[in-house]
Amino acid sequence: MEAILRQSRSMCPFLSKTSPATLRSLSTTATGHDVSPGAGSMSNLQVLARRCPIMGKALAVQSARFGNNVLAGAFGGVRAYHTRVSRSRLHTSSAKEAQAVGVEKLSSKQVPFPHTAAKETVKTQPSPQVGAPPVPKPVTFDYDGFYQNELDKKHKDKSYRYFNNINRLAKEFPRAHMASKEDKVTVWCSNDYLGMGRNPQVLKTMHETLDDYGAGAGGTRNISGHNQHAVTLENTLAKLHAKEAALVFSSCYVANDATLATLGSKLPNCVILSDSLNHASMIQGIRHSGAKKMVFRHNNVADLEAKLASIPPEHPKIIAFESVYSMCGSIGPIEEICDLAEKYGAITFLDEVHAVGMYGPHGAGVAEHLDYEAHLAGKPTGTIMDRVDIITGTLGKAYGCVGGYIAGSAKLVDTIRSLAPGFIFTTSLPPATMAGAKTAIEYQANYQGDRRLQQLHTRAVKGALNARDIPVIPNPSHIVPLLVGNAEVAKQASDLLLEKWGIYVQAINYPTVPVGQERLRITPTPGHVREYRDHLVEAVESVWDQLGIKRTSDWAAEGGFIGVGEAGKKEEAPLWTDKQLEVDAVLKGMKAGQDAHIVLESMLEKEHNATAQAVSAIA
Amino acid sequence: MEAILRQSRSMCPFLSKTSPATLRSLSTTATGHDVSPGAGSMSNLQVLARRCPIMGKALAVQSARFGNNVLAGAFGGVRAYHTRVSRSRLHTSSAKEAQAVGVEKLSSKQVPFPHTAAKETVKTQPSPQVGAPPVPKPVTFDYDGFYQNELDKKHKDKSYRYFNNINRLAKEFPRAHMASKEDKVTVWCSNDYLGMGRNPQVLKTMHETLDDYGAGAGGTRNISGHNQHAVTLENTLAKLHAKEAALVFSSCYVANDATLATLGSKLPNCVILSDSLNHASMIQGIRHSGAKKMVFRHNNVADLEAKLASIPPEHPKIIAFESVYSMCGSIGPIEEICDLAEKYGAITFLDEVHAVGMYGPHGAGVAEHLDYEAHLAGKPTGTIMDRVDIITGTLGKAYGCVGGYIAGSAKLVDTIRSLAPGFIFTTSLPPATMAGAKTAIEYQANYQGDRRLQQLHTRAVKGALNARDIPVIPNPSHIVPLLVGNAEVAKQASDLLLEKWGIYVQAINYPTVPVGQERLRITPTPGHVREYRDHLVEAVESVWDQLGIKRTSDWAAEGGFIGVGEAGKKEEAPLWTDKQLEVDAVLKGMKAGQDAHIVLESMLEKEHNATAQAVSAIA
Repeated sequence: MEAILRQSRSMCPFLSKTSPATLRSLSTTATGHDVSPGAGSMSNLQVLARRCPIMGKALAVQSARFGNNVLAGAFGGVRAYHTRVSRSRLHTSSAKEAQAVGVEKLSSKQVPFPHTAAKETVKTQPSPQVGAPPVPKPVTFDYDGFYQNELDKKHKDKSYRYFNNINRLAKEFPRAHMASKEDKVTVWCSNDYLGMGRNPQVLKTMHETLDDYGAGAGGTRNISGHNQHAVTLENTLAKLHAKEAALVFSSCYVANDATLATLGSKLPNCVILSDSLNHASMIQGIRHSGAKKMVFRHNNVADLEAKLASIPPEHPKIIAFESVYSMCGSIGPIEEICDLAEKYGAITFLDEVHAVGMYGPHGAGVAEHLDYEAHLAGKPTGTIMDRVDIITGTLGKAYGCVGGYIAGSAKLVDTIRSLAPGFIFTTSLPPATMAGAKTAIEYQANYQGDRRLQQLHTRAVKGALNARDIPVIPNPSHIVPLLVGNAEVAKQASDLLLEKWGIYVQAINYPTVPVGQERLRITPTPGHVREYRDHLVEAVESVWDQLGIKRTSDWAAEGGFIGVGEAGKKEEAPLWTDKQLEVDAVLKGMKAGQDAHIVLESMLEKEHNATAQAVSAIA
Repeated sequence: MEAILRQSRSMCPFLSKTSPATLRSLSTTATGHDVSPGAGSMSNLQVLARRCPIMGKALAVQSARFGNNVLAGAFGGVRAYHTRVSRSRLHTSSAKEAQAVGVEKLSSKQVPFPHTAAKETVKTQPSPQVGAPPVPKPVTFDYDGFYQNELDKKHKDKSYRYFNNINRLAKEFPRAHMASKEDKVTVWCSNDYLGMGRNPQVLKTMHETLDDYGAGAGGTRNISGHNQHAVTLENTLAKLHAKEAALVFSSCYVANDATLATLGSKLPNCVILSDSLNHASMIQGIRHSGAKKMVFRHNNVADLEAKLASIPPEHPKIIAFESVYSMCGSIGPIEEICDLAEKYGAITFLDEVHAVGMYGPHGAGVAEHLDYEAHLAGKPTGTIMDRVDIITGTLGKAYGCVGGYIAGSAKLVDTIRSLAPGFIFTTSLPPATMAGAKTAIEYQANYQGDRRLQQLHTRAVKGALNARDIPVIPNPSHIVPLLVGNAEVAKQASDLLLEKWGIYVQAINYPTVPVGQERLRITPTPGHVREYRDHLVEAVESVWDQLGIKRTSDWAAEGGFIGVGEAGKKEEAPLWTDKQLEVDAVLKGMKAGQDAHIVLESMLEKEHNATAQAVSAIA
């Protein structure tokens, strides 16, 4: 060792200039803040050596040859990695008062995480080179520090999500219990828009299918997971949308992602034109396709046309858009987009996720609703729905189950079936889920009561909130978004509604909506009868007061924002017309001297009772 | 018009040299083969005009201005697009004899698809420019031709998939019926490896949860879809793998895709090292991440190390691999890969999809199995499973339900929870599915009988087939792959087993396995008792004879292939040891003069009865 040190000294300008005392002092373990995270237990001398162009390389080679286990053995690696946190409280609100408890709070109490030190070796294996000098561990990436940093960013911009533990009660729809069964709330933000998740027919089918065919499909569609439930569900979906074929996926997220990724990557020179408010699943699918993407302004057909016209006519083009945009309730101009698609030789990809079950005489969505009479008469040919090339939908919202699908021409569907990894290489949905979804679709295709009642409740809620100057973002659909405009306040409002009023409405923050457009998103259902609605309106009014949230008139004073308080803006008529909802009965009642409110309520009551009777008659 | 023609003639070299008679003749509709597909009904003059640098542009502008509807009105667009095919027979075998019926056969009979003509306009709207001259439709992309071409390619290389309609009967496991309820077969290729899909406890939990909480979750995890079922399932999964946290996804395809895509895209300079036989979901996740990818040779730690050593130590690295590779049954070298990960500062991403429920004293997978005694004693700290950073698994195979998950450190899981669009923007699994899966995991964590019986059946099947010179691709796991080596023959063998023998074993062809390695993949379960096994062996023997498929000795004569008939290759011992399976009892019986076969059978019988009793005792 002495000989090596002498030799090194003669060659190394650093060693030749440093006294033995300094070198001894440097050999102690580094503890200063300037040590790189992930350096582990290294001496200051080793830290300096790693910076040397000669020694650094030599140390790296040595480390690679002997492995880091040598280090762990020599330096006694710390193992703080697998300490448990209280799992049941991790990023969830097990009780209402626990909502503000985040991971960082828990971990400061319970988890001795080394926030800067990189992961080190656990097992202290006997080193094969016991006599070898201790070799410093090379500086490796600090994964834990990275995760912490990502989480810190989410906390800082208030986009960190705390999940509410909501157990929706089938027998008390739209009520739910929180972590404790006694702690009940009214759910006002579920996407089980029609309450089909507790529909007796759906549940009956699922119970029977569970007993006969078990819990799971047992394989991919190609390997033992294809069955009569998949066949009949896909037939039902094709029929619903008057298309040649349909294909079921694990979810509509997967359906959108897989279909757009497959088409966009396979079609030569494909350009995908995407509405600026498209759902994350489409954005991901387009990204995954690697195809050229052109984003057009939300619902702006002029912008879309300008972009279409800029693409060579012979290049394939896909226009990807939605019928109901779920966070603002706006509705895509389907007919105009079909016109443009035909004009420029594009195909249309329409996401009807928030519309299936909800619009149209058979619940096929907005495209069906636009030719209401034709579809009611069973004449789909030449309709707008008929002109759309690819319709995608979900079984997990208005149909109350889970899963997604596409519907289109036989060749298109067979191509996606044959090429999309997200379809091919995954376990099929369980037989009971597919059977239940099929029952839900058929039920809604044959019964108009639920979606009409849902629309009447939506009108009542929007009307009552608007009357109280609460800023409902105007739209022609079933979504009731209340503008808050601040992430922290939106969460406070949501928490207050839950804690003080027993009303669950999730705050919608970035990245689901842009910063500054934070909102509460309310979704009425057929089950939200008058007592629930009155309670909601009272609660919202109180929370708006308590937190000093801007009213519509406040937004108007500032010139308006995203449709709220915008002077001179013509409000879009609801997609469900007065005639389709028989609202003329209300007017008739008014002429007869009755209060409009009372007439509407009595209609809702009547409709509600009719629904209840229809359900019990069928069940 | 005459004035325009004269003016054009004086300017245009083509018109000035062409006689009026020729021009008249060119004005008739083109029918020749040289007309571009998608040109619609164009006159020859228009075809020529489109090639002219002056007229071509003018026509394009005109077409863009007036829209193609003008054309449709003027030329009478043909609508052959929405003719129906018989949906129920689309790419599925509704009866055994229907298997060879593909889409192209159906469509030639029933669908008058225009194979070359592009889609044309349907609605004949009155043109606003009635007096305007007819404008030729620009040549647009032929989508139908593209789909057809993609399907043709699949047919040509024999990778086109025909799905078998298999309805697995919960009360007659492992039996199923085909499209007709009377037409029963034995399923030998399901991934419901342990029959948990019909487990009475699982079904009981699901029935109760359906009644109490309905069919679907009703929202994403953030918006009303988070509940006690998600919380307790994730706690159970974390506990199973002795990790701090777990996160449930729609499927393990989504779990793998979303996790790798998120980590790979967020970690700066990330390199993902991927086993060459990794599942499609990981391959997609890596692709979607945009991170640098390095593929190492299957299970080759030397190749992996060389690649790890080539990456700067400070760069983040993910080693993505599997425990059981499902198509060949090989097992990843988990401990060696953990050693390398620690040595080079990488994190490990281990897919235990085909192993959870099947290996280890609690069914946590191969990583748990490798420290069998430590985990049996409840001491996970410092074990191989403990060293793996991210474990992914499924609820849809050995656990009999559907869904997937990751398990790892609290920070990692919270990061994926907070960043992965595939987790955030999709509806939660239904409460009953999550509750059923939790019951299945707990059942398997507390009961060893099913997976041991499955292993004994696997040994019996492999032994019997090997004894008959059937080419079982050797492996230490529960998968029984039979090498065929030709896509067409593999499908014939599968069809023959189904039609003649009532045995369902799907043929596995490209792209699931490489061309030339086509196989039948058999997966025994605890329910495949002796009569089923004897029947299988007899059937396979007969099919191999009938189709003249190569035997092990034939492969050996050619020097062997992918482990089959490879001389001098030491066979890997099964992962479940003789001791763990108590196979010594067989040897004891042999010493006592009994036939090994008989002793094994009596063990299987005993084990089977014990399982049946355990199940009925619990139920």
